[in-house]
Amino acid sequence: MQIAIVVYPGLTALDAVGPYEVFNSAPGCEVRLVWKRAGPVVTDHGAFTLGATHTFAETPRPDVVVVPGSSANTGHAMKDATLREWLIAVHPHTRFTTSVCSGALVLGAAGLLQGQAATTHWAVMGSLAKFGAQARADERIVRSGRIVTAAGVSAGIDLGLALLADLAGTEDAKAVQLAIEYDPQPPFDSGHASKAAPATLALAGERLAARGRTPRAWD
Amino acid sequence: MQIAIVVYPGLTALDAVGPYEVFNSAPGCEVRLVWKRAGPVVTDHGAFTLGATHTFAETPRPDVVVVPGSSANTGHAMKDATLREWLIAVHPHTRFTTSVCSGALVLGAAGLLQGQAATTHWAVMGSLAKFGAQARADERIVRSGRIVTAAGVSAGIDLGLALLADLAGTEDAKAVQLAIEYDPQPPFDSGHASKAAPATLALAGERLAARGRTPRAWD
Repeated sequence: MQIAIVVYPGLTALDAVGPYEVFNSAPGCEVRLVWKRAGPVVTDHGAFTLGATHTFAETPRPDVVVVPGSSANTGHAMKDATLREWLIAVHPHTRFTTSVCSGALVLGAAGLLQGQAATTHWAVMGSLAKFGAQARADERIVRSGRIVTAAGVSAGIDLGLALLADLAGTEDAKAVQLAIEYDPQPPFDSGHASKAAPATLALAGERLAARGRTPRAWD
Repeated sequence: MQIAIVVYPGLTALDAVGPYEVFNSAPGCEVRLVWKRAGPVVTDHGAFTLGATHTFAETPRPDVVVVPGSSANTGHAMKDATLREWLIAVHPHTRFTTSVCSGALVLGAAGLLQGQAATTHWAVMGSLAKFGAQARADERIVRSGRIVTAAGVSAGIDLGLALLADLAGTEDAKAVQLAIEYDPQPPFDSGHASKAAPATLALAGERLAARGRTPRAWD
């Protein structure tokens, strides 16, 4: 079972590492971090660099594709012709083509969300309609046939476990959940836009907008 | 506010990336990934490489230290004299000296858990006593003065948010929780050893043990 996690400059590290840790904790999964070139890729905050392990050309038939989001560079990923063409080429053959956070917009830009129910990070939920998708803002994981989209950032862990349960069975997925001790105890109940106080929503929104306006190496 | 996350060969990626994403989503935090040398560090599954940004020598006064765990190499990190000496040197000056998962054993090997309450990954909980620590197997985050230890892997997200609430205030921490959409919905209730079925516990234990026996580049 080959899992291809797309790693483009400016991705959000946890979007990729949540599913990575889940799949790599299961036997029989080969997890690749794919980009145009193997080698270092800088994430959105600039401090964290991770390494692409394989190129798109080396990865023509992944079983699962995961497209992470970005707080700073989703737009560039959406416009990237190589990434778009690869997604269009591999999608007909995958078991699941998936996204975390604003990665849904990258799937949308490749035309894969037309007529599909989908979710994404709350701050860009309104963009899904542009790609012909029906936004499901209240669902953390949205399945629409082989397209599976997850909410923002930390939802990639839930996505990984849900897919693994389908692909390898619930016993495997439960064992991985225990191996990564995923028994979450968030200190607040502010993790979803419908639960956060208006002041929290305003503060988080301002900061994300400011981050989107910060010039980056890839701009 | 300087946050130093220790990245040693064989660490578990999510142990580091959970706290990384939390702290880097807050304004005013400078997050460093520290090791003996700046540059690539291979994580425990072998596929994921991340980049150390600074050396120990460049990081003499971090405000917060985070030591991640490993499914394959905690023993080497515990024996590493440079890491141990750095921990002993910086700890008296930190706001918090912390660990995720089996990173607690690295703090223990540096003598920092003597007489402290602590937690770690369930699979190595029995090792805490060797370092004079009182194990708290049922707590996800254990505070013992400036020493704060977290349970396995995914608990680093909860640790980051709990520390951020202390360091920057609850409003900041709530906004970060919303920014990373941390509204977890695990598919099963198998994330803690006390909740998992005996078969799940046995399967996860076998796999972790097998991973510990797999020879690695750093052995």
